[in-house]
Amino acid sequence: MIPSGFSFSAVNAGVKSPEYTSDDIGLVLCERDALVAGVFTKNRIKAAPVIIAQELVSRGRIRAVFANSGNANACTGDSGIHDAHSIMESVAGHLGLGKEEVIPLSTGVIGVKMPVERILRKIPLLVQGLTHDPEVFARSIMTTDTFPKIVRKQAGRATVLGIAKGAGMIAPDMATTLAVILTDAEMTKQSLDTIIKSAVEKTFNAITIDGDMSTNDCLIALSSCLIQEELSIVSKAIQETIQELALMIVRDGEGATKFVEIIVDGAQRDDDAKRIGLSVANSLLVKTALFGADPNWGRIMAAVGYSPVPVNETDISIMINGLLIVRSGQEAEGFQENDLHEKLKSKDIQIRISVGNGTGSFTVWTTDLSYAYVQINAEYRT
Amino acid sequence: MIPSGFSFSAVNAGVKSPEYTSDDIGLVLCERDALVAGVFTKNRIKAAPVIIAQELVSRGRIRAVFANSGNANACTGDSGIHDAHSIMESVAGHLGLGKEEVIPLSTGVIGVKMPVERILRKIPLLVQGLTHDPEVFARSIMTTDTFPKIVRKQAGRATVLGIAKGAGMIAPDMATTLAVILTDAEMTKQSLDTIIKSAVEKTFNAITIDGDMSTNDCLIALSSCLIQEELSIVSKAIQETIQELALMIVRDGEGATKFVEIIVDGAQRDDDAKRIGLSVANSLLVKTALFGADPNWGRIMAAVGYSPVPVNETDISIMINGLLIVRSGQEAEGFQENDLHEKLKSKDIQIRISVGNGTGSFTVWTTDLSYAYVQINAEYRT
Repeated sequence: MIPSGFSFSAVNAGVKSPEYTSDDIGLVLCERDALVAGVFTKNRIKAAPVIIAQELVSRGRIRAVFANSGNANACTGDSGIHDAHSIMESVAGHLGLGKEEVIPLSTGVIGVKMPVERILRKIPLLVQGLTHDPEVFARSIMTTDTFPKIVRKQAGRATVLGIAKGAGMIAPDMATTLAVILTDAEMTKQSLDTIIKSAVEKTFNAITIDGDMSTNDCLIALSSCLIQEELSIVSKAIQETIQELALMIVRDGEGATKFVEIIVDGAQRDDDAKRIGLSVANSLLVKTALFGADPNWGRIMAAVGYSPVPVNETDISIMINGLLIVRSGQEAEGFQENDLHEKLKSKDIQIRISVGNGTGSFTVWTTDLSYAYVQINAEYRT
Repeated sequence: MIPSGFSFSAVNAGVKSPEYTSDDIGLVLCERDALVAGVFTKNRIKAAPVIIAQELVSRGRIRAVFANSGNANACTGDSGIHDAHSIMESVAGHLGLGKEEVIPLSTGVIGVKMPVERILRKIPLLVQGLTHDPEVFARSIMTTDTFPKIVRKQAGRATVLGIAKGAGMIAPDMATTLAVILTDAEMTKQSLDTIIKSAVEKTFNAITIDGDMSTNDCLIALSSCLIQEELSIVSKAIQETIQELALMIVRDGEGATKFVEIIVDGAQRDDDAKRIGLSVANSLLVKTALFGADPNWGRIMAAVGYSPVPVNETDISIMINGLLIVRSGQEAEGFQENDLHEKLKSKDIQIRISVGNGTGSFTVWTTDLSYAYVQINAEYRT
């Protein structure tokens, strides 16, 4: 089941290099004007397609999304903007649309000019290949991802479909890596905007693999508005879709061997809980200890202590996969290193940190840090 | 040559475990009341010895420093404070001093109670073994360090000696790992305080291995005040001593294969330049690219862009080991990936980032991130 009004396509254009044979350009088309909303990276260095997409999203209605992997079209200056426009123009021309009805998305290596000629040659084929299978599009935007990320939800009579890519370089306070959320539920642009911004705050902005924030991340949401459904039902389905995509990205974290959920409560405010959670989630010492199932809980305490949020050591307690580790800031009575070591062998780790009696809480998701992360990122390009 | 008035000792007490045979408790004694100043971790969770040392330093004069490796005495609550006092009392008793003339320093695993009995048994031996060889003390505070860190400087007639330990978990905005700076130059407590605080700001607070900040870090400076020398000469020697220790710590970064200097200039203020430099220094994607000699300069641009400091993409230029990589935010003319790949094979990497026409500049030092870092930290304890 896919949302009414949308079709998909993908072909290979050799974006990264002419020898590359997987599909690396993709297209989503809406059969009528679609509402559009977006959340974009907060990195001050934004890729050309991000700059263009932000402008187009602010206008409110589009017809198509063109995406490529293999090249970020970032740090490419005026020629990057020009290249993105050439591609938009070609896609629009073959679809019988105006250039500004096509939103560009790019992901891949920064600082390399787009191979525009190779891409333009394949656009007729891309436009001819439109089908109702979203997986072709999902695969075309993969970079170091090991699986395509697609979530489908029924929202009463309406349907929600989410597609994302992302495996490393996922950090909060950016929108996400690339994600496209599609629905056929009728609503206003303002509703769509509010729903995705609130969903991103507790999902894509709550996951971190390595703390790095990319130049290219964006989440674009489109609605064909073909189906009438209650907004609360649709909103919940979109929220769940975005959360599931975010967690898929964590599960596919580069070289990750563990999926780690960090729940912080008892803080003064939710935002304080979030900062503490991210401090722990981004600690290399915590991440490597988790990789090695090392019961060195002091590293979690240290990361709580250096977050920007004031805490009282004696108010802190920590549970890991149900085992009480720290009570009142000290090793819990009866704690045995080996019990924790056994718990840490699990692939799914839940760290629950309580920092006091406040009502602020937040959940963040992350991964461990393995040899494979270093390998993937030391060899990404050469 | 060592500063007049100081002697050193170290013995094994099996702090980490009774089977451990290297020296792990150490002592520095001053033959007369020494001026004392200190800089301490900003982590909100402070080890017992840090809490005690901060209090003693604020009073102004001490006679001895007791240090141990193998146990941080952190997250140990009231009993940790009590344990530290027992040790101070024993050291003071054997030296004929008051308990509050002995400053305690600890480094090692967090959250484990100090093996006080084992330590107390060895204190008579420790006190008997005092000599003029600082290396025994330097070795006794090593944890994952691969070499002892000692710097000696003449300051006219006076002498400066610095000793430090530290290999990972080195992050700015903490004082340092453990460091002891000794001099015999006469000065006021206020001068000593000013000199070390200003030196730490541009040295220990400008180095980062993994961005983690420990519960135990402190730098303690003592002066026996036995020699008259011009303050400016002494100040310069202390500053250089502290900087050399900081750079030794970076060179001994856990599993590091490269020493990386990042110079940021053209910022509005020095502090802005520092934030940009640290953003790049702490980026896992930059660190792994350096490890793999991957010429993926876009990762440096991305890290500049997500620092908290506003920058204009087109104002940015980047040089690496003398090779111009980025000019006006884009790949420099004539740039060849392979040239950069060759430059990155060097063990010493200098990244020079210019972000505009401001007068703010700052230099930070860091390492790459290797398989060995992950290995050392996944297996530290189990």
